[in-house]
Amino acid sequence: GLLEFCTALHPARTAEFMEALTIDEVWNVLRHADTQLQSEIFAYFEHPFQVEIIESRDPAEVAEMIACMSADDRVDLLSGVDEEAVTVILSLLPLEERRDFQRLSGHPEGTAGAIMTTEVARLSEDLTVRQALEELTRQAEHLETVYYIYIVDENDRLHGVVSTRQLVSSLGKSDRKLSELMEPEVIHCQVTEDQEEVLRKMADYDLLAIPVVDDTLQLVGIITHDDILDVVLEEAEEDAYRAAAVEPLEDSYLQTPIITLSWKRGVWLIILFIGALFTSMALGHFQEELNKFAWLVPFIPLVISTGGNTGNQSATLIIMALNKGDLTARDWFMVVRREILMGLILGSLLSILGYGIAFTEAPSAFAALVVPITVLAVVIAGTTVGSSLPLLFKSINLDPALMSNPFVAGIIDFLGIVIYMSVAILLLGD
Amino acid sequence: GLLEFCTALHPARTAEFMEALTIDEVWNVLRHADTQLQSEIFAYFEHPFQVEIIESRDPAEVAEMIACMSADDRVDLLSGVDEEAVTVILSLLPLEERRDFQRLSGHPEGTAGAIMTTEVARLSEDLTVRQALEELTRQAEHLETVYYIYIVDENDRLHGVVSTRQLVSSLGKSDRKLSELMEPEVIHCQVTEDQEEVLRKMADYDLLAIPVVDDTLQLVGIITHDDILDVVLEEAEEDAYRAAAVEPLEDSYLQTPIITLSWKRGVWLIILFIGALFTSMALGHFQEELNKFAWLVPFIPLVISTGGNTGNQSATLIIMALNKGDLTARDWFMVVRREILMGLILGSLLSILGYGIAFTEAPSAFAALVVPITVLAVVIAGTTVGSSLPLLFKSINLDPALMSNPFVAGIIDFLGIVIYMSVAILLLGD
Ligand SMILES: [Mg+2]
Ligand SMILES: [Mg+2]
Ligand SMILES: [Mg+2]
Ligand SMILES: [Mg+2]
Ligand SMILES: [Mg+2]
Ligand SMILES: [Mg+2]
Ligand SMILES: [Mg+2]
Ligand SMILES: [Mg+2]
Ligand SMILES: [Mg+2]
Ligand SMILES: [Mg+2]
Ligand SMILES: [Mg+2]
Ligand SMILES: [Mg+2]
Ligand SMILES: [Mg+2]
Repeated sequence: GLLEFCTALHPARTAEFMEALTIDEVWNVLRHADTQLQSEIFAYFEHPFQVEIIESRDPAEVAEMIACMSADDRVDLLSGVDEEAVTVILSLLPLEERRDFQRLSGHPEGTAGAIMTTEVARLSEDLTVRQALEELTRQAEHLETVYYIYIVDENDRLHGVVSTRQLVSSLGKSDRKLSELMEPEVIHCQVTEDQEEVLRKMADYDLLAIPVVDDTLQLVGIITHDDILDVVLEEAEEDAYRAAAVEPLEDSYLQTPIITLSWKRGVWLIILFIGALFTSMALGHFQEELNKFAWLVPFIPLVISTGGNTGNQSATLIIMALNKGDLTARDWFMVVRREILMGLILGSLLSILGYGIAFTEAPSAFAALVVPITVLAVVIAGTTVGSSLPLLFKSINLDPALMSNPFVAGIIDFLGIVIYMSVAILLLGD
Repeated sequence: GLLEFCTALHPARTAEFMEALTIDEVWNVLRHADTQLQSEIFAYFEHPFQVEIIESRDPAEVAEMIACMSADDRVDLLSGVDEEAVTVILSLLPLEERRDFQRLSGHPEGTAGAIMTTEVARLSEDLTVRQALEELTRQAEHLETVYYIYIVDENDRLHGVVSTRQLVSSLGKSDRKLSELMEPEVIHCQVTEDQEEVLRKMADYDLLAIPVVDDTLQLVGIITHDDILDVVLEEAEEDAYRAAAVEPLEDSYLQTPIITLSWKRGVWLIILFIGALFTSMALGHFQEELNKFAWLVPFIPLVISTGGNTGNQSATLIIMALNKGDLTARDWFMVVRREILMGLILGSLLSILGYGIAFTEAPSAFAALVVPITVLAVVIAGTTVGSSLPLLFKSINLDPALMSNPFVAGIIDFLGIVIYMSVAILLLGD
């Protein structure tokens, strides 16, 4: 019953259904399927479920199953598993798979090396189309993708690329050599390259896969479209969490225990809270002036939130332009000039509104000027600080996304109070 | 010189270099390349540059060039072009390309139909592997991708899928029928389906392309990995802009004129400014209490920013879980219960810090209680409101991302003031 059910569906769907079963039940069904199907279904389980299975089952059976997985997925899979269990399983893997594991597992998170796989089609340029297809037929099962074939020399150095589309188009002239078909200028990436740069290349050139080379230009691996799609989703998620001052979650919202979630939120809330204390201290410093000009107090939230909102806009625009490669840290001067100009335009606009309101509350038309002047200054401070901070982070090689909304807003809250009180003292006297 | 240069590089790189030339120069180089290469290079130009070329050149030459583009790219391209020019160019296109245009251009933005293309490999299940490869060889040039072949019946209804990988693996047994090889359960999408759902399917099932069917299950198109990658990047960008209250930009930061950028920012700043006026009015309403208990004033920024930050965290977590399909609007009760609990934990934590500070400023240890009680209440308000608003938006079919950080923060600023003053009156008396 269950086995037939398993083979009829896409492995991803089968996996989805099976996650409702107990581990014993799952394993009993899986062991009746052939190893290839086993490993395909298994690959689609959620990571914690996979780890549980691996740590509790017979290492020999587990090793047989994961030997069928692609090398990159195997590395990701074993990353969460108990170290002793990993050692046992590795010792049971065929030599080649063990080598792949060692080759792949050393690369730092976020680099091309950490998302590539080693199973790449590499052929010599002397082969004919017919020979190449025969070779592919032989290798197809072990390759991550058969859709790009990389041409390498005797030292494994990358010389060119031929697509299966080209092979299929050339079936009529199957004696042609790969050297005639191949594209000698191959878009590639370095094994140490940042995954976001890899992503940009694949998106710009509409690639299905990109070859990865080391510093001697030897072909060491390949990154495929599905893994790069996961990278984008991950990076976008990470940036969104940062923009809200949440430490990125590993599991889904509902699967993350409340205590973990509280910690991932609490740590940033406390930092921001301490930051906000400085704003309160600044305000406490002007207690006397606030008593004298009590009508200024209700405008405090207006003034600081306007600065914060403008600063967030600038920070987000600059972070995104940096991510997309539209800007570099060296464009600092041009960017800040633009942002000051925009601050002038936006600030003037809001000042007019602000004066309209302050006029009705202030003791005199002159006194009311404190509000619009502050709004203008705070908006310009917002655009300047909001755009400079991500550029500064970029130029000292930190992720500009760290300079995200709540921090920018916090800094500008502080500046806003100082500006507001200074303008008030200047215009209204001590 | 220039032509050789053009043919040596990847079309995307050639396009990049050519954007530094004038339109006349570009056109002079392009017209010497063959039409296929012409259209490939042209496809990589930035959209405004493409439009300029199309509107200023001989329609016949333009039509010849864009006839070589893939159908989906052609629709995107012509979307920005002057209507009269489009009519002229369409009339010069071959009949089939004109039909493709009509079929593709009617679909609303954000649906599968708007990103699919019509050039899909469809074969009958009676063909053998050999015949299928011959047919592919014939069609390869006109197809968007040759890597999945869809099997259709006489009415174009989708029956199965065969990958080129399978064909290549089966080259040794080339008399096998496609019906034996094909996977009958095809992951597909509806032409009206939201592009974010399509994206999730392609990511979950690691697909290179997904077939698109209409409501009679007829195969009408295909969406490929490169176009879905563009969708993710676009959607992530859109959400990031929204989270910062900027109307999404069409061009890059530096290419957007300052006046356009000011408008895209100003419109939201004004809305948020008006929102903040309510907070100021609320505060103005408590003028008398503020005069009496002046030590409360410096804590205003602290109280409201803490509420805003907590609300942003909740809103972002829920928006992302909704986007990923981890939550639906029906999970409302469970989510809000979780968020209230987290509000209690986080709020208690921050309250302790808050009491420590308030203690040194307040006239008595009892009076100082106003601050921690407010912090606790504001944090719970933040988690409740921040999580409920995106769920509410989702349940009335609005994009939950609209309920983004600045709005949540604005609403909670207002609530924060009301809570603060109410607690103060309750504890300290009128
Ligand atoms: Mg990164
Ligand atoms: Mg990996
Ligand atoms: Mg692209
Ligand atoms: Mg992979
Ligand atoms: Mg994968
Ligand atoms: Mg990033
Ligand atoms: Mg704020
Ligand atoms: Mg959408
Ligand atoms: Mg389109
Ligand atoms: Mg995937
Ligand atoms: Mg396309
Ligand atoms: Mg495209
Ligand atoms: Mg969206």
